Amino acid sequence: MRDHSVRDLDFASRVRGSFERQAFMSYLGAKIKTLKPGLCEIELPYRPELSQQHGFFHGGVVGTLADNACAYAAYTLTESHASILTVEYKLNLVAPGKGESLLARGEVVKSGRTLSVCEGKVYSVHDGKMTLCAIVTETLLPLPETDDGPGLSEKT
Amino acid sequence: MRDHSVRDLDFASRVRGSFERQAFMSYLGAKIKTLKPGLCEIELPYRPELSQQHGFFHGGVVGTLADNACAYAAYTLTESHASILTVEYKLNLVAPGKGESLLARGEVVKSGRTLSVCEGKVYSVHDGKMTLCAIVTETLLPLPETDDGPGLSEKT
Amino acid sequence: MRDHSVRDLDFASRVRGSFERQAFMSYLGAKIKTLKPGLCEIELPYRPELSQQHGFFHGGVVGTLADNACAYAAYTLTESHASILTVEYKLNLVAPGKGESLLARGEVVKSGRTLSVCEGKVYSVHDGKMTLCAIVTETLLPLPETDDGPGLSEKT
Amino acid sequence: MRDHSVRDLDFASRVRGSFERQAFMSYLGAKIKTLKPGLCEIELPYRPELSQQHGFFHGGVVGTLADNACAYAAYTLTESHASILTVEYKLNLVAPGKGESLLARGEVVKSGRTLSVCEGKVYSVHDGKMTLCAIVTETLLPLPETDDGPGLSEKT
Repeated sequence: MRDHSVRDLDFASRVRGSFERQAFMSYLGAKIKTLKPGLCEIELPYRPELSQQHGFFHGGVVGTLADNACAYAAYTLTESHASILTVEYKLNLVAPGKGESLLARGEVVKSGRTLSVCEGKVYSVHDGKMTLCAIVTETLLPLPETDDGPGLSEKT
Repeated sequence: MRDHSVRDLDFASRVRGSFERQAFMSYLGAKIKTLKPGLCEIELPYRPELSQQHGFFHGGVVGTLADNACAYAAYTLTESHASILTVEYKLNLVAPGKGESLLARGEVVKSGRTLSVCEGKVYSVHDGKMTLCAIVTETLLPLPETDDGPGLSEKT
Repeated sequence: MRDHSVRDLDFASRVRGSFERQAFMSYLGAKIKTLKPGLCEIELPYRPELSQQHGFFHGGVVGTLADNACAYAAYTLTESHASILTVEYKLNLVAPGKGESLLARGEVVKSGRTLSVCEGKVYSVHDGKMTLCAIVTETLLPLPETDDGPGLSEKT
Repeated sequence: MRDHSVRDLDFASRVRGSFERQAFMSYLGAKIKTLKPGLCEIELPYRPELSQQHGFFHGGVVGTLADNACAYAAYTLTESHASILTVEYKLNLVAPGKGESLLARGEVVKSGRTLSVCEGKVYSVHDGKMTLCAIVTETLLPLPETDDGPGLSEKT
């Protein structure tokens, strides 16, 4: 893993606070598992409500976790009074999301002045065995001096 | 819109059947709005459970609709006894998902022997006005002679 | 085509000047064919030096034109004293680059304060017939108050 | 690095033969540096003909090397009588291509029956120091029983 210096020593509570304000995360049942400077892992137990037509995790669920793991990895490295926006991401689905849970890991590749770039992997976990399910690359836009809560006006 | 010829005259009931077997679609509240050869539109009314930290539609919801609109657009053009897999997609989020509903439209750009390529757009709808929210490009793998239901074995 | 307003009435000479400073364009033999607010077309006649192992245009050549058509489409809409950087792009190759020439068209989807998003298509031209060869989506970063010539310091 | 088993023990001469048939590679001045099962490195010395308007390596050159390093990494793992096509790739440019040479490394993430997925990085090399310049994800389609030379008919 790459070594990153943080601008906000209290990054963990800031990131967890933002994650908890995302109602969609609790609707899915997703939780942050690991949080370090430049890294975020999110896990999500299987439920039938999250499935596609073959009974596996829906690709949209896989993509959601991939996006969020990257976004919160990047968010660990912003200033304290900042928000962050996903500009774009690209996801390759390499195996069906088949298992008791998903684990998504996002890591910062470059944390720039204007943009951040992250890479991530999503694994399906079955009987304790992790299978690579998807890979993602994501570009993010940190918004300094922006409240990360309801009422964000458009900044881009 | 491009002109596509169908291999399966009964494509509409086949596509709608697959969509209805995706439990995640009804968990989100998404419905197919339009279905033509090479085109699929999906709509989703806003609910607070689908939101991110600013109260807008979560990017994962936007991505899920974009993916599915493309996948089902491609699925309109397969043979009758086929399934279809998303290989990869790339999503640019160009505005927040702010509105009473989302509308995702996927269209087939190329329907090949081995692979299909689709383009899509997601709009947020507010007071009857559509705002472009995301654009997507997606690659799909049709699986001939494959049951589109529970129990798919890995084919790729 | 979308309707775009320009910030710099003299955009055409600015864009053409930048294109001419790209030595790689003349090394390939590429020329700007059309330039309008938010749109750029580049054409490139076939030469054996530009080919891959089957004798067609190399995918890297296709990608280069796709990237540049998008970049210069976005560059038509910046302020006069600006440069522009490609943040990322995604290219789907849907047919071999087989023909007497390539034509790449890039169009601005969104020209934002911080970022621009473009879509493009590359066609191979054979006996006057255009065949879709590739589609691209690209994100760009305008750099205001930045000289578009040798000596750019890193801004991102 | 991941561990891959080869289907063709003579993969190295097959890959190098294909590379040498790509006229565009010698036109650029690119050479294969390293070749292992599932991995390919390509290097390219700087020349002014390869530059963009700031005098750095053109993004199209960076993209071309990224694409080819991934494609030939995947090609190391095909059967002996096969060709391979790039389906799509996505490139993030994270720093200007500034230096005496570029080094592109492609690695296979998944080598499937139907499709292969690779990840790659491009570095600029300046005074012996490598700087990350771009990251790429690429999807490839192996074509069994297909001659990798002039005259390929369309297979997709």
